[in-house]
Amino acid sequence: MKRVLVTGASGFIGRACIGPLVSRGFEVHAVARTAVRGADARAVWHHHDLLAPGAAARVVDAVRPTHLLHLAWYAVPAKYWTAPENVDWVAASVALARAFDRAGGRRFVGAGSCAEYASADGDCDERSTPLAPATLYGTCKHAVHRVVAALAEGRFSCAWGRIFFLYGPHEDPSRLVPSVIGALLAGRDALCTAGTQVRDFMHVEDVADAFAALLDSDVEGAVNIASGRPARIAEVVLSIARQMNAESLVRFGARPIPEGELPSITASIARLRDEVGWSAWRDLDRGLGDTIAWWRERP
Amino acid sequence: MKRVLVTGASGFIGRACIGPLVSRGFEVHAVARTAVRGADARAVWHHHDLLAPGAAARVVDAVRPTHLLHLAWYAVPAKYWTAPENVDWVAASVALARAFDRAGGRRFVGAGSCAEYASADGDCDERSTPLAPATLYGTCKHAVHRVVAALAEGRFSCAWGRIFFLYGPHEDPSRLVPSVIGALLAGRDALCTAGTQVRDFMHVEDVADAFAALLDSDVEGAVNIASGRPARIAEVVLSIARQMNAESLVRFGARPIPEGELPSITASIARLRDEVGWSAWRDLDRGLGDTIAWWRERP
Repeated sequence: MKRVLVTGASGFIGRACIGPLVSRGFEVHAVARTAVRGADARAVWHHHDLLAPGAAARVVDAVRPTHLLHLAWYAVPAKYWTAPENVDWVAASVALARAFDRAGGRRFVGAGSCAEYASADGDCDERSTPLAPATLYGTCKHAVHRVVAALAEGRFSCAWGRIFFLYGPHEDPSRLVPSVIGALLAGRDALCTAGTQVRDFMHVEDVADAFAALLDSDVEGAVNIASGRPARIAEVVLSIARQMNAESLVRFGARPIPEGELPSITASIARLRDEVGWSAWRDLDRGLGDTIAWWRERP
Repeated sequence: MKRVLVTGASGFIGRACIGPLVSRGFEVHAVARTAVRGADARAVWHHHDLLAPGAAARVVDAVRPTHLLHLAWYAVPAKYWTAPENVDWVAASVALARAFDRAGGRRFVGAGSCAEYASADGDCDERSTPLAPATLYGTCKHAVHRVVAALAEGRFSCAWGRIFFLYGPHEDPSRLVPSVIGALLAGRDALCTAGTQVRDFMHVEDVADAFAALLDSDVEGAVNIASGRPARIAEVVLSIARQMNAESLVRFGARPIPEGELPSITASIARLRDEVGWSAWRDLDRGLGDTIAWWRERP
């Protein structure tokens, strides 16, 4: 029997994980702070604020999961880089891991970030790129991984999926892809930076499927969750505009590239592909097409 | 007004800190799990289990300290290297720092460890020796420092005292110095390893005085709390034996050196001496003499 507790289950990635986990034969227990309209009925929902004192232990003791997929974190766009709430999630995350171990849990997978790496010249590699987070967010994510991996030794199996850049249904409207789609849907100009920054973009349903595959494997340690197909931000914007027949509304260079933004953040996907045995199947045009369709049909 | 909250205040180091803090003009609020017989009346005592859900925030909100000296941790001899309780102290420590920040705290000093360093050829140096803890204990201490220092940026002042090896009154009887003194006091053989390991030893009252000086300074980041006068373990044992006129009872080589024990763990004290402006005044013979006297007179 595989019983997984998914935290952050009503979030951007979490909601997309339930299907892939059910497909892999998991009994899915989903934790969210509040009840969500249209919550996926294939999961058993538990409503807890994991930041409330003692909540992590209570939900783990109630569910007694064999697997834990820990996605919950402070995620307010832009603010999350420096918000002190990151520290609350360190406390909640390690408490969750401790409770999971005490309840006899077998495999823990958590959501890390490319923000844990020092800026790299080439692809970020799990085994060779130095870890030197420049932000409170990256520092806190990295600290949770170090602590949970050290706790896990001899006790339970542990992996850490480092997420790069993602897009798809239910993304916060202030973020790149939804803001471009939103402008073009409204017939407004899409005011962009020069768009020269290179990033590894991945559709959220691919991210979720990769997490389900990682959880269902016995691969340990950090694993980049990325497509391995870097693109310039301009390519993303142009793909959206072409599919919406609105290329004339795109204004590159209308906004400055934010200071400190790295020219390139890309990932080695060797561990994900060769050890977990998973690769993204959506290309960027297809993934963005799905996303445009979702925003068009949004109630 | 300087009001300090001291956690772990009834512990080996904590109890020795109260005097030096009072001398420096701090109003001292001491946290301990339970009331201790003969507790130092110069401090206001607060009884809380910091591992209880929400306790860290409750005690900080009640005291509203300007300074926090965080010494509390899981400290059961030998077990503490790998005990899962280390993870509970990560959660409690970062919760304490968050509550301290929210309550307007100005300066946080925590107790780190030489176990945060990768094994070094020469003296462990705060600025150049790589940090690569080999144990759950060292990993957890290091994670707390990283998270609290990142939280502190732009919010409060933060330093981290990395403790090396210490001895003195109230030490756990199973540890090196008390076990040798105890054997010799009882007229039994002191069964020792070859004693070739080199360590930086410091009297606990010097450690406590150094922490008070660090707290009362504005030095930020990691600072080794060490004497800068390394000694072989055999020298420590022989100093005790000479002062007790019991050299014939010392049996070097009667026990094997534990596997994995490093030949040398010593500290650079440049930051403590030059930036904090503090140096240990007790030499080893004097510090051990005090300790022997304390054990002789122990009720």
